[in-house]
Amino acid sequence: MQPPPRAAGPGLRRWRLDVAYDGRPFRGFAAQGGQPTVAGALGAAIARTVRLAVPPPLVCAGRTDAGVHALGQVLHVDLPDTFDADLAHALNRQLAPTVVVRSAGAAPPGFDARRSAIWRRYRYLVWNAAVPDPLLAPLSWHVAEPLDRRAMQTAADPLIGEHDFRSFCRRPPGAGPDEPLIRRVLDVHWRVVPATADDGEARRSGVLLRLDVVASSFCHQMVRSVAAVLVDAGRGRASAATVMELLAARSRAGAPRPAPAHGLCLVGVGYPDALGSGEGPPPRSRALPGADHAT
Amino acid sequence: MQPPPRAAGPGLRRWRLDVAYDGRPFRGFAAQGGQPTVAGALGAAIARTVRLAVPPPLVCAGRTDAGVHALGQVLHVDLPDTFDADLAHALNRQLAPTVVVRSAGAAPPGFDARRSAIWRRYRYLVWNAAVPDPLLAPLSWHVAEPLDRRAMQTAADPLIGEHDFRSFCRRPPGAGPDEPLIRRVLDVHWRVVPATADDGEARRSGVLLRLDVVASSFCHQMVRSVAAVLVDAGRGRASAATVMELLAARSRAGAPRPAPAHGLCLVGVGYPDALGSGEGPPPRSRALPGADHAT
Repeated sequence: MQPPPRAAGPGLRRWRLDVAYDGRPFRGFAAQGGQPTVAGALGAAIARTVRLAVPPPLVCAGRTDAGVHALGQVLHVDLPDTFDADLAHALNRQLAPTVVVRSAGAAPPGFDARRSAIWRRYRYLVWNAAVPDPLLAPLSWHVAEPLDRRAMQTAADPLIGEHDFRSFCRRPPGAGPDEPLIRRVLDVHWRVVPATADDGEARRSGVLLRLDVVASSFCHQMVRSVAAVLVDAGRGRASAATVMELLAARSRAGAPRPAPAHGLCLVGVGYPDALGSGEGPPPRSRALPGADHAT
Repeated sequence: MQPPPRAAGPGLRRWRLDVAYDGRPFRGFAAQGGQPTVAGALGAAIARTVRLAVPPPLVCAGRTDAGVHALGQVLHVDLPDTFDADLAHALNRQLAPTVVVRSAGAAPPGFDARRSAIWRRYRYLVWNAAVPDPLLAPLSWHVAEPLDRRAMQTAADPLIGEHDFRSFCRRPPGAGPDEPLIRRVLDVHWRVVPATADDGEARRSGVLLRLDVVASSFCHQMVRSVAAVLVDAGRGRASAATVMELLAARSRAGAPRPAPAHGLCLVGVGYPDALGSGEGPPPRSRALPGADHAT
């Protein structure tokens, strides 16, 4: 069990921020001394706006990796309750369009961006075409070999449900090799989506494939490893059986190298109704878990 | 009248290249000594591939400006007829994904990428939302005020047909203020398009608007000036009457500043059937001009 969410301390008010960013300039979300990170940029901008001597701690729903994008990241931050200005506007003036605060306001009582979240949705984009596309390149993995989309979906289906994802994830710092990484996958599906701004004619030569994965929570590199295995299935080099074997193996030894970071994007986060819903609607056609807050 | 297209000289063979590029790193298409340009990058890569002492001249259908993208640029280049390798592959290995050669092959007899073209199609993207979007920012102009799309289309309609576009264009070098800039606009329309990869839920807060302008040819900054006036119409600050007055004025004095370059993209070029069609289908619902090669 995780410790319960901590409320904001005396004299502080908790804010919820809904944030989008282009992941390319950053070494991931989490602040790392000296490196450009999303949390570093946001924390510094908040400190300037609120006139704090040091950046306040930021807690996010999904700690995106270096190069990973977000459209629906959610975070909370506790600020002096004397501050009462338009925080989103002030931050966007400093950081947009690379980092954009889509909304910022008082969080409901008990809200914790990470611990209250009941699901996260990531998308992974694959541009399947003989040649790359310069305008999709920052957002998608270019795969030149023709992919069998039905095989990719068939291989994805065994991922649904609660599994030990050790074969698909980097071991967390300090965790032993036998420590399980149990996650509950609520939905995983591929679809063909319109390319940027529906460029129709100029893109007849390829298709843009979008993988959506919704889970209670994710471990490190999980979606990118899943995307890599499923693309292998599309190439005829893996199958549903491969995926089941990988899950059973509980070891990263046989797993393919994770797909490139820039194809990945955190699209939305779900919260219980009482805490306000996240960016995404609930995963389609499958029930939400009751109180699965595992992270 | 323009001089007729020149055929490739003796010992040379003419190639047609269909090219896409991210315009941001470049000072436009046309080679300029010392500046990074698309023609400069392509010419150097061709010289390396074909083992030429100097880059060969490249002739393009649309000389895109600094920062303007292309998905369907067409160009020709005359190369020694002893060269017979996979030019697209060789160039993509050097330049992709920033510049991508979508196809390269022998041009039909009489083909001239610029002079044979009978229409060009540009798109202009506007992200109309309260806040910017980090993933659309490289491709679109962010306009925060709500736009009246019907007013934008109504204001666009008077542009159809043959007009003197001096009010919308930079005067070409050496041209006097009284020299007309006659262009024939075949189609101009706005539509709402899916945002990158159909991000649905995370983008409910805005709409992506796409302006398509098809014309026999374009003069400098024409689409960006048109986009600026039409967005002004969407804001309630201009109308079809404004557009007609601007056309009649034949002077840039009253025209708004051109919309930002990064929202613009050359999407396709049309050629007579005998020369092979370009990337885009013919402009919808309007006849093509007979032999309007004005550039």
